[in-house]
Amino acid sequence: MQAEKLNYSAKELENFSKKVFQNMGLSEKNAVLAAKVLITADLRGIDSHGIARLSGYYRLWKKQRINANANPKIIHESFSTATVDGDAGLGLIVGPYAMQVAIDKANQHGSGWVSVKNSNHFGIAAYHAMMALEHDMIGIAMTNASPLVAPTNSNERMLGTNPMCYVFPAKNFPPIVIDMATSTAANGKLEIAQRTNKNVPFGWLQNSKGEASNDANELKKGGSLLPLGSTRENGSHKGFGLSAAVDIFSAVLSGANFGPWVPPFVAFLEPDPNPVGEGIGHFFGAMRIDGFRKKEDYFNSIDTWINRFKNAKRINENQPVIIPGEPEFEAEKIRSVEGIILNENVVKDLIELAEELSIKY
Amino acid sequence: MQAEKLNYSAKELENFSKKVFQNMGLSEKNAVLAAKVLITADLRGIDSHGIARLSGYYRLWKKQRINANANPKIIHESFSTATVDGDAGLGLIVGPYAMQVAIDKANQHGSGWVSVKNSNHFGIAAYHAMMALEHDMIGIAMTNASPLVAPTNSNERMLGTNPMCYVFPAKNFPPIVIDMATSTAANGKLEIAQRTNKNVPFGWLQNSKGEASNDANELKKGGSLLPLGSTRENGSHKGFGLSAAVDIFSAVLSGANFGPWVPPFVAFLEPDPNPVGEGIGHFFGAMRIDGFRKKEDYFNSIDTWINRFKNAKRINENQPVIIPGEPEFEAEKIRSVEGIILNENVVKDLIELAEELSIKY
Repeated sequence: MQAEKLNYSAKELENFSKKVFQNMGLSEKNAVLAAKVLITADLRGIDSHGIARLSGYYRLWKKQRINANANPKIIHESFSTATVDGDAGLGLIVGPYAMQVAIDKANQHGSGWVSVKNSNHFGIAAYHAMMALEHDMIGIAMTNASPLVAPTNSNERMLGTNPMCYVFPAKNFPPIVIDMATSTAANGKLEIAQRTNKNVPFGWLQNSKGEASNDANELKKGGSLLPLGSTRENGSHKGFGLSAAVDIFSAVLSGANFGPWVPPFVAFLEPDPNPVGEGIGHFFGAMRIDGFRKKEDYFNSIDTWINRFKNAKRINENQPVIIPGEPEFEAEKIRSVEGIILNENVVKDLIELAEELSIKY
Repeated sequence: MQAEKLNYSAKELENFSKKVFQNMGLSEKNAVLAAKVLITADLRGIDSHGIARLSGYYRLWKKQRINANANPKIIHESFSTATVDGDAGLGLIVGPYAMQVAIDKANQHGSGWVSVKNSNHFGIAAYHAMMALEHDMIGIAMTNASPLVAPTNSNERMLGTNPMCYVFPAKNFPPIVIDMATSTAANGKLEIAQRTNKNVPFGWLQNSKGEASNDANELKKGGSLLPLGSTRENGSHKGFGLSAAVDIFSAVLSGANFGPWVPPFVAFLEPDPNPVGEGIGHFFGAMRIDGFRKKEDYFNSIDTWINRFKNAKRINENQPVIIPGEPEFEAEKIRSVEGIILNENVVKDLIELAEELSIKY
């Protein structure tokens, strides 16, 4: 990393991340995997979840809240279900382990469903769910997260932005990848508004009293994000319901912390001294296409689906209907060739990290 | 049914519905089941999906679009997955059959997942998902529906209100029942506004040009419902993504019609002459709690979850956080005792139906 250089290849960012993870004590194999999961976010244009978070993981490790030598394992199972104990490892390692368990179970029994406790943040949900694609399976990934979102009628931060991800393989089109926070806006978008002191749309957050606000800085003064739907009359109880489902699949089912007890990602905030579970929770699923239908028939149908929706009537001739996952697929095509342009503050942060760890860069 | 009588017991409504279904040619056993599924909606306060739709099912049957002697069956399966052909039957019969397949598979293999083609509307999703409760399982139900909702950037009706339902059993509280259309507002709410000529909130629909509107009557002039999130900046692409997932699980996976090809529920609109599948599609899931964790531990955790969310800080002291499913549970308690008050137009419609079928009432 160099102060004056902002554009890096994915390989460069992966190598740098790998060194940081190795420095934390991860095996080479695990460091390579964690780096790959992390940088997949940058490649896909999800800058908030990629290398910008590397120092965050490092600081959590320094606080002894991440176990670098974690050995995730199955602690309870049936033919098509399991619970994995992440052994306080990096979610970037625990996630792929648990998703592989789901895929293996699907291979043998048609579907596999894995709830995970005692983990940490796992990067982008899509990385894990997309592992299903090479097996011609549908992939599902969810995770709970530190409380930032208030349920309808409340001004208390009770839920994370708890993303849901559904991945469907296709034939002549890129796969459909639905990867969405169950809040109206992802926290990353509010962080950008805070840095630039710009207003955000009404419906993204409320102030500490629960009043509508368009000032992202209210979040630092006790405000909260709003569930998808934004207001009761426009369905925020539905966003709350979805977020609740993610929390229960990920944590009530596995024995992780849930709701307001989910430990914070930022190292300067301490976890609740009286936790209701272990670490944060994830949930993964994999289903064989041919557990339902001949593969060929499915692939013809999904391509018809995509083609029809791409050609839906447009309100504005220049703005087509966007198939979920298409923008990330396009970003990856471009960034694989042209590189990833980092924010200068992110580069500065990484240089400091490299100096602290005496990593050559 | 009597013109001057608006309040009926669930038993009265079930008996009347049973007679109508028997008149259509359903066996007594199936007529009893269909009536029970239908009236469960009225009991739970979901008036739009209950007996108010009875004449709609009858008119579809009269148009030969419902097979009264349907024999739903598994046409493809693995240990934990299956596709069911509904044989063009009433969804009120096909749904419970397919959900039972999911439960049976979960009993044997930990989880069961069933996609359904060649069906019709199945009433409320919650009825089917809640079948999991007596087995200490998590229940899931989804269905696609006639196109009314436009994807983000489009003014074409491409998707139904495609509900998702997740049901989680609890111990000392009622179960959590998340049963939600993936559009901002359910169509039933717009029908009420049309009847009473009242404006609705902005964010529920757009006019035929794709412009924001608060006039429910625009729906009759080529307008469309909006996906949960309402506008692009407040996340309508997420509601679109959820609705797409429901459509794909229900129909692309089973071989039912999807997207704009889903046949209309109203008998006066003809299905597309070039369908891409058979009938409408549903999707069901069941997962054993003890496939993940000791039941006792799960039940303690879910009760802690519910109790904590019920006690979240309130914006307005009189409005607590509502646990999904609580209002329907309360409605059922009251309506089981006090009866169900029907709209006078619904009673009029049922009297006409009774006369047409020479049913004694």
